[in-house]
Amino acid sequence: MKRPSPIPASALPAAAFRAPARVRFGDCDPAGIVFFPNWFSMASATIEDLFRERLGIDFHALHAERGIGTGFVHAAASFMRPGMMGDDVLLTPLIRRIGGASYALDLHIHRGEEELARLDLVTATTDLATRTSRPVPPDLRAALLRYMSECGPSEGQEIPA
Amino acid sequence: MKRPSPIPASALPAAAFRAPARVRFGDCDPAGIVFFPNWFSMASATIEDLFRERLGIDFHALHAERGIGTGFVHAAASFMRPGMMGDDVLLTPLIRRIGGASYALDLHIHRGEEELARLDLVTATTDLATRTSRPVPPDLRAALLRYMSECGPSEGQEIPA
Amino acid sequence: MKRPSPIPASALPAAAFRAPARVRFGDCDPAGIVFFPNWFSMASATIEDLFRERLGIDFHALHAERGIGTGFVHAAASFMRPGMMGDDVLLTPLIRRIGGASYALDLHIHRGEEELARLDLVTATTDLATRTSRPVPPDLRAALLRYMSECGPSEGQEIPA
Amino acid sequence: MKRPSPIPASALPAAAFRAPARVRFGDCDPAGIVFFPNWFSMASATIEDLFRERLGIDFHALHAERGIGTGFVHAAASFMRPGMMGDDVLLTPLIRRIGGASYALDLHIHRGEEELARLDLVTATTDLATRTSRPVPPDLRAALLRYMSECGPSEGQEIPA
Repeated sequence: MKRPSPIPASALPAAAFRAPARVRFGDCDPAGIVFFPNWFSMASATIEDLFRERLGIDFHALHAERGIGTGFVHAAASFMRPGMMGDDVLLTPLIRRIGGASYALDLHIHRGEEELARLDLVTATTDLATRTSRPVPPDLRAALLRYMSECGPSEGQEIPA
Repeated sequence: MKRPSPIPASALPAAAFRAPARVRFGDCDPAGIVFFPNWFSMASATIEDLFRERLGIDFHALHAERGIGTGFVHAAASFMRPGMMGDDVLLTPLIRRIGGASYALDLHIHRGEEELARLDLVTATTDLATRTSRPVPPDLRAALLRYMSECGPSEGQEIPA
Repeated sequence: MKRPSPIPASALPAAAFRAPARVRFGDCDPAGIVFFPNWFSMASATIEDLFRERLGIDFHALHAERGIGTGFVHAAASFMRPGMMGDDVLLTPLIRRIGGASYALDLHIHRGEEELARLDLVTATTDLATRTSRPVPPDLRAALLRYMSECGPSEGQEIPA
Repeated sequence: MKRPSPIPASALPAAAFRAPARVRFGDCDPAGIVFFPNWFSMASATIEDLFRERLGIDFHALHAERGIGTGFVHAAASFMRPGMMGDDVLLTPLIRRIGGASYALDLHIHRGEEELARLDLVTATTDLATRTSRPVPPDLRAALLRYMSECGPSEGQEIPA
């Protein structure tokens, strides 16, 4: 495990998509801080909003109508500082890599300038009917590439295939 | 990201602690498979049971009475196969490393012989009142070392400090 | 709202199905007690087990293969005493009423003899493809009646149609 | 159980507080609809926002600093229509009753004009240190009364004590 160094919110690309979220009472545990799986749920919600509001891809239709799954094959998080109930946070997803049948994101969670958590999420596109791998659909690939390009190069980013 | 190769359940140490769990309807998403943050919740429950049933440490008293937090500073999972509603799974935690103020576990999730997910979890011990790092308490350290020794050497395990 | 009086666990029918559960760290909120929606999740899991282990109906096949939904149209709970992390509880579902296209359960949650919560859950059977009401399937109706009869008459129970 | 009749969103008091929420992929179950306990979680988040944004009471400070709990003693919901992933919903809480050491809310969940769910939530104020009942604090009582008065009389509302 390599522990990432926190990056201030303002150091992220200005053109990146940002989703606000509020830490809820029910998100927190008896230690008074976010129960860690809930950070992953918030990240998942952010990716849905990224699709809808920035990529122009209907995440829900992708699953329900087009039968394409975007399940995670890898999900990792480094927790740098605890989130507390009532905190207003900002989630910033950045595309790190686009492969043939998968793509990878870095997702930063900040409270003000302070980075609370950094997530590394790898998604594989699947055919929901057969539960087998399938290529990233062309409209999603184009949208991911466009977003990646709008955000500009970032540390750790890999050249898309 | 390195993707681990699945290990059959029977290849894990016979002496390891195993916690059964059942995948619930409410754990699954519209794609019919476990919504990934729920795997982390199941892993967290397993670690509570490991403490109570094998390590002899009351996880809940540790927090509520002794004021010691065991928050995660890193949590990663590779998802190899989807879990479906009704699946009976077995979660096997193995200690990988014990440091001064942290310890790391590998946690395997199997359905029968088939590995569904592999988690890598790093916990830091904290003083809940000040939210600062503190050494792993001696009774917990001794119990973790004993469990580690009972399980025997495993791939990727590091020599305890 | 009428507040029910707690019933000791031993006053429930001896023949009733009982599902054990353990209150988890992640089920609890910053007040240190079960975050109330999680009691409903535990109840939902108990009903899955009732179907599988006592009624002989595969809850998951009912949905995934037979296309029959058992969605809740009403869910209520009275919380009598808080559940704390580490508590071992027992959930006891009792059938209160079986209608043409719905059935109702009382579900008691006890810690030892002490009742912590009482739930009132009404399920309507639906055709998942059309999302419309459909009769309770005959095998499920027969199983519910059999279970109801095994438990014997209970307070507030209504004569099945 | 009395089943309420749906009320169109526009029939609710114009002055009522409304909180937007989006139904997430992870909120939904394999039947593709909101897993019912998640409606209660959304309602809980709405009440936090009502406190902060309309009542001027810091929900989080109330718990963490003032040691006052606002636990639910009763929670009920009638589910009229299913919520689907991607739905944008509006949650409207209305005060129904303010007692000496408790208060009750009706909470309506709408998608457009269509009511999806109606919740009935009763909160008891407690001293978190002793976990015993305590009077509703004066600032909270005044704020609840003010909000109740701003919304005007509503069906089923009771005269405050």
